[in-house]
Amino acid sequence: MSIAVPLSAEDMVVQATDDASPTKWHLAHTSWFFESFVLSAHLADYEIFDPAFNYCFNSYYELLGERQPRAKRGLLTRPSIEQVLAYRKHVDAALERLFATGFPRGFDQARLVEIGINHEQQHQELMLTDIVALFAANPLRPAYRAPTPRPRDGELPEINWIDVPAGLYRVGHEWSGFAWDNESPRHSVFIHKYRLADRLVANAHWIEFILDGGYRNPTLWQSDGWATVQRESWIAPLYWERRDSEWMSMTLEGLQPVDPAAPVMHVSYYEADAFARWAGARLPTEFEWEVAAAGDDNSQGRLNPAHGESGTLAGLRQIYDVAWQWTASAYLPYPSYRQPDGALGEYNGKFMVGQHVLRGGSFATPLGHTRATYRNFFYPHQRWQFVGVRLASEAV
Amino acid sequence: MSIAVPLSAEDMVVQATDDASPTKWHLAHTSWFFESFVLSAHLADYEIFDPAFNYCFNSYYELLGERQPRAKRGLLTRPSIEQVLAYRKHVDAALERLFATGFPRGFDQARLVEIGINHEQQHQELMLTDIVALFAANPLRPAYRAPTPRPRDGELPEINWIDVPAGLYRVGHEWSGFAWDNESPRHSVFIHKYRLADRLVANAHWIEFILDGGYRNPTLWQSDGWATVQRESWIAPLYWERRDSEWMSMTLEGLQPVDPAAPVMHVSYYEADAFARWAGARLPTEFEWEVAAAGDDNSQGRLNPAHGESGTLAGLRQIYDVAWQWTASAYLPYPSYRQPDGALGEYNGKFMVGQHVLRGGSFATPLGHTRATYRNFFYPHQRWQFVGVRLASEAV
Amino acid sequence: MSIAVPLSAEDMVVQATDDASPTKWHLAHTSWFFESFVLSAHLADYEIFDPAFNYCFNSYYELLGERQPRAKRGLLTRPSIEQVLAYRKHVDAALERLFATGFPRGFDQARLVEIGINHEQQHQELMLTDIVALFAANPLRPAYRAPTPRPRDGELPEINWIDVPAGLYRVGHEWSGFAWDNESPRHSVFIHKYRLADRLVANAHWIEFILDGGYRNPTLWQSDGWATVQRESWIAPLYWERRDSEWMSMTLEGLQPVDPAAPVMHVSYYEADAFARWAGARLPTEFEWEVAAAGDDNSQGRLNPAHGESGTLAGLRQIYDVAWQWTASAYLPYPSYRQPDGALGEYNGKFMVGQHVLRGGSFATPLGHTRATYRNFFYPHQRWQFVGVRLASEAV
Amino acid sequence: MSIAVPLSAEDMVVQATDDASPTKWHLAHTSWFFESFVLSAHLADYEIFDPAFNYCFNSYYELLGERQPRAKRGLLTRPSIEQVLAYRKHVDAALERLFATGFPRGFDQARLVEIGINHEQQHQELMLTDIVALFAANPLRPAYRAPTPRPRDGELPEINWIDVPAGLYRVGHEWSGFAWDNESPRHSVFIHKYRLADRLVANAHWIEFILDGGYRNPTLWQSDGWATVQRESWIAPLYWERRDSEWMSMTLEGLQPVDPAAPVMHVSYYEADAFARWAGARLPTEFEWEVAAAGDDNSQGRLNPAHGESGTLAGLRQIYDVAWQWTASAYLPYPSYRQPDGALGEYNGKFMVGQHVLRGGSFATPLGHTRATYRNFFYPHQRWQFVGVRLASEAV
Repeated sequence: MSIAVPLSAEDMVVQATDDASPTKWHLAHTSWFFESFVLSAHLADYEIFDPAFNYCFNSYYELLGERQPRAKRGLLTRPSIEQVLAYRKHVDAALERLFATGFPRGFDQARLVEIGINHEQQHQELMLTDIVALFAANPLRPAYRAPTPRPRDGELPEINWIDVPAGLYRVGHEWSGFAWDNESPRHSVFIHKYRLADRLVANAHWIEFILDGGYRNPTLWQSDGWATVQRESWIAPLYWERRDSEWMSMTLEGLQPVDPAAPVMHVSYYEADAFARWAGARLPTEFEWEVAAAGDDNSQGRLNPAHGESGTLAGLRQIYDVAWQWTASAYLPYPSYRQPDGALGEYNGKFMVGQHVLRGGSFATPLGHTRATYRNFFYPHQRWQFVGVRLASEAV
Repeated sequence: MSIAVPLSAEDMVVQATDDASPTKWHLAHTSWFFESFVLSAHLADYEIFDPAFNYCFNSYYELLGERQPRAKRGLLTRPSIEQVLAYRKHVDAALERLFATGFPRGFDQARLVEIGINHEQQHQELMLTDIVALFAANPLRPAYRAPTPRPRDGELPEINWIDVPAGLYRVGHEWSGFAWDNESPRHSVFIHKYRLADRLVANAHWIEFILDGGYRNPTLWQSDGWATVQRESWIAPLYWERRDSEWMSMTLEGLQPVDPAAPVMHVSYYEADAFARWAGARLPTEFEWEVAAAGDDNSQGRLNPAHGESGTLAGLRQIYDVAWQWTASAYLPYPSYRQPDGALGEYNGKFMVGQHVLRGGSFATPLGHTRATYRNFFYPHQRWQFVGVRLASEAV
Repeated sequence: MSIAVPLSAEDMVVQATDDASPTKWHLAHTSWFFESFVLSAHLADYEIFDPAFNYCFNSYYELLGERQPRAKRGLLTRPSIEQVLAYRKHVDAALERLFATGFPRGFDQARLVEIGINHEQQHQELMLTDIVALFAANPLRPAYRAPTPRPRDGELPEINWIDVPAGLYRVGHEWSGFAWDNESPRHSVFIHKYRLADRLVANAHWIEFILDGGYRNPTLWQSDGWATVQRESWIAPLYWERRDSEWMSMTLEGLQPVDPAAPVMHVSYYEADAFARWAGARLPTEFEWEVAAAGDDNSQGRLNPAHGESGTLAGLRQIYDVAWQWTASAYLPYPSYRQPDGALGEYNGKFMVGQHVLRGGSFATPLGHTRATYRNFFYPHQRWQFVGVRLASEAV
Repeated sequence: MSIAVPLSAEDMVVQATDDASPTKWHLAHTSWFFESFVLSAHLADYEIFDPAFNYCFNSYYELLGERQPRAKRGLLTRPSIEQVLAYRKHVDAALERLFATGFPRGFDQARLVEIGINHEQQHQELMLTDIVALFAANPLRPAYRAPTPRPRDGELPEINWIDVPAGLYRVGHEWSGFAWDNESPRHSVFIHKYRLADRLVANAHWIEFILDGGYRNPTLWQSDGWATVQRESWIAPLYWERRDSEWMSMTLEGLQPVDPAAPVMHVSYYEADAFARWAGARLPTEFEWEVAAAGDDNSQGRLNPAHGESGTLAGLRQIYDVAWQWTASAYLPYPSYRQPDGALGEYNGKFMVGQHVLRGGSFATPLGHTRATYRNFFYPHQRWQFVGVRLASEAV
């Protein structure tokens, strides 16, 4: 909720694009999620706040009934933000009553609550991405928050390459601590030797790519990517615009000059892939990324326990705290993956075609939310998230 | 402004459809109109409230510069409703200063103010049509205002036919009192004898049309209309829905049972035309409508001076106060019509292709705004306005 | 059929655009028309050639059953061109048998045959317009026929204005000789005094319009026209292309230099209207055009009997033999117009919304097919027909 | 060319859908491929047949210049089929001259010829798939060839499961004999134990799926698949239609009753995946498929040398000769994959996003064209190819 503080009721109701959702909708949907998946089934005396809300705030769960079409979430001027806040209170109070019961049915109940919390964390980040989308579409280019005075780095840090040997590695999550269903089962995978960039591609690199005609040279692009570049007239990352021959970019701090030393953000998979080809490199697979982030003990099965960089390969930077990183891997189920039963099976399990995996986390990801095995996923053309690029290449 | 009272800030910022505009946008645009067409040029010391507002609130005047795309008016969460209200105060205060000058430059200045007032009156009606559109798209089907208890007419009033003789009539406005440029010049037109229905088609008639397969019978429809029926799956007027085998309709009072005795509303030209064919009648031309509404003195050139029914042909009802009425006439310029100079020429003069004329006025039209010569116009597929049907036929 | 001689079977089967039809389809459809409207009902022993052809070659008659979607006429590689030619023979032979009966049922039968012949004449012109469309879409820009060596006029003929006085005129057809239902009934119309250009706008004028920024100046255009210019990136008439800084245009003779002295063709209503505004003129209404073409005896009711210019106002040129001419009139029914009964009612009567009337005829119109009362009609954005521009203006 | 024998010139010029190409285009494109990749560079005195053909028949090679848009290949009525056949003769004669030189530059030249031949083989299958598409869109439902009298199997053969142990396998091609660039490099992959169906899913199974509401149950589908089912109103495989309560299907033999015992064809990835879920199984990965098809010596690196089933796992049927088989694998580059230099790099290397791998071959694949390492690829919604379904599941 503190995320919504700088926003007016007007800011919270409007939907910037079909991909984005209104802040109010996020606020209501996360409570609806607790209501539908936890409280209705697990709190004996729970009373549904308003039966009409299921239609309004169900995102995409076919098993939970009809719902407001995704592209029309921004039409919900009613229920009002006040009603939604009351809804959140109602749900929070019920959750506290549930906590007081001590989860008599044990693991399953606790896991559902944990899922609800992690679900809400995801939406915390989405609220911020969607606010940037909204304010970027506004001719006044408003700022969500005041810019922190930041020394612009005089020097562009060099990218160093970390070598990783070939071998049979264990990847995926082993169910100690929370993880999503799509991170399991933990399993073996053979990985060829490779090199991974220690840091993300910077804006300065991207400007070089632009100046070298990257957006005009079809041979750098996958066919679908090139078609998108042409159709959408892409000439730079999303939110970039020229003002007086300087590149500016829309951010939470409003329209700001592009900082050459900062990692590039708001690029699609198509662009990340084309950039990598231009740079003589490639994108890492999700397992190349995971093995490096999880650290050298990975072969013995120890996972990097939490948000943090202990255990990762020496020198690896900007893993979880700057921008999600496109991988070369399509988002597909792991061997022996089983969709959870019921509507929760729809959470991650019905998006396993046509999307690519992103790894890491962004500056907007809640602390403690992410880990080495975490699999984020988006369509290759999407770029409104806080997404950047880490390169890989064949080992020499 | 009183129109906005029942609305929250959220209700006022959202755009229901590409055709509709947000209430806040209407409120700002009408003040922008005064600022751009009256104050900037005619009040010596006028200070533009905020130069960025021209982009935000210019509707379609190419001569006044770039503007927010029509379909994206609902993204303007900023400027806030408070800023827009301040804008309106600023403009109103300046207008009062201008009034105090007594219009030194005479007619032209006064006419511009009059245009601004009539423009705002148009938007008063549009605000209401657009609020219905917004609330109709909301699964909660909210009401803008409480329903007035209304006796449902037990009997369906019969339609009577008024005969009008052939002759050379004068139509159009002669510039006594306010009128839009598209109502002029007043000119002669030869009209064949005809009959005009004394009242509008009622919901009961429309239900008969539906029951008789009106929406499934291509021979009743113009080719474009039939294509639209199929593509859009039309089976009834806009806002009608079946609940428990009763027709309900979305109104300013929320979802209400369709009153059989009340005039049908929210039908397109295509539907009006198909209905007329089904009924063995046709739609009147705009001049057939005007001659009847203006009254029998029309041939001597006396126009019905204002909103009211004095002077109209005896027995003619529901002229200005229920629903606009589709006519068979395409919206085209009158002989010797001259577009006003400058951006005002764009007001009515650039929409003269592909639309049809509506005559009359609706329950939502401000009192005194309309007259016998008034020409409203919409595309033949549009039906979110308060629009109904009056029949005509050949005289027997 | 002689129209098809220069074409291969391949040329005849392909559909250039959704608006155009394949030559083979035209050939089959015109015979289908005779079969469906004349032979089936009026020749006792007539045998349907192939029952499947009704689906294939019915154009748009809802009363005659389902049909191949318009945009998919080009998929009909079967029936083959040989089968279609056999179909034409079969129908022609049956028509001769019918003629031999001497039309026992009199007028109605004769009129149906006449309709079939006039229908076929329309398609003769359409075949040519559609072949240009096909060859213009071919990167080889083939020629349908060899260019006739033509002296390029050294001088651009001046446009002279013909003045016509105001008055009550009779317009429309009075049923002596063949006419379409939409030309009737003949009726009175009051026309204000006006001036009509004696000849069509020439390519040289159009190039001037282009050079003066006509396609980049929104104030010249109707709103829908400007939107089309932007969306379609129009910068010149259809089929015009720049080669080595010269304007070339696709014609039946292949890609040819644009002749400055020749009338402009392949412009939409939007362009014709914008050009007229740029030129300080306007388009004539359909009745202004008709009165001038029908001649000064018009007020007494004598119509120009046939294709030819006798009887027209002195000096009027390029009436029927160069290019159809856009008028300012929307295509609407005449007072007391009655759609013919049955499927023939669909011929002209269901297109009376959203289109504009064109008058005259083109170099490709069969001799004797057109007349002063003839009403052709197309949508305002369409420009693949042989269509040009005649200006009108207010009398001084 | 023999493939084209049953076709008329009309059949050969028309394009059924955006995905399909005309037969004539296939015939010309395959010769253009030899001309552009082999003859121009490797036959000293080669003369380009017609410089305009590069525009007409370049499919998608950006490095070879502008080209006819894919969706408009069917507009090329010129060059005629006769010219295209002359083109093929010209190219064939030149190839023979090149063969006579004995490939002085060795491997590279021979490989280019081999690529040209394999490219042409691919188009031989595509010609057949595209002819079915064309004839299926024709209301006459023509047959490409006479049906061979075929005993309809009384019994539906049972599906048996073949167990494959976990292990580190070698997959991909090792460059003995011809293979495409995307089959390399040969590399190690760890595969978990699994079971593979010995034969393809039959029509009888699919009808059961339909009867069980498979196309109406969203929980069986990936989200994108379900959206497609709804948008496209899918209720059965492509080309299936109900006639008198029997399922018929369009085939090369025209419209034929669906044979319950025959493998299902013309299903998308979405459908294959949903069916597998309904059946309690899943689709195999491309490596699970390859390992089984290549046989038990695979771990030692011996690849199944050619089209044939020797070496494959005992009992595996319908591998290369019935229908291509969707796999669960996205089409992505192998580790250390390098796009070939020049325009050939575009052949397979620019489609590596958004598509899925198919393995095997179909009844229409030329003999000897396919092999265990062969990677075919299509978008998950595409189903006009000869594509079927083989199931896999976790080992028990």
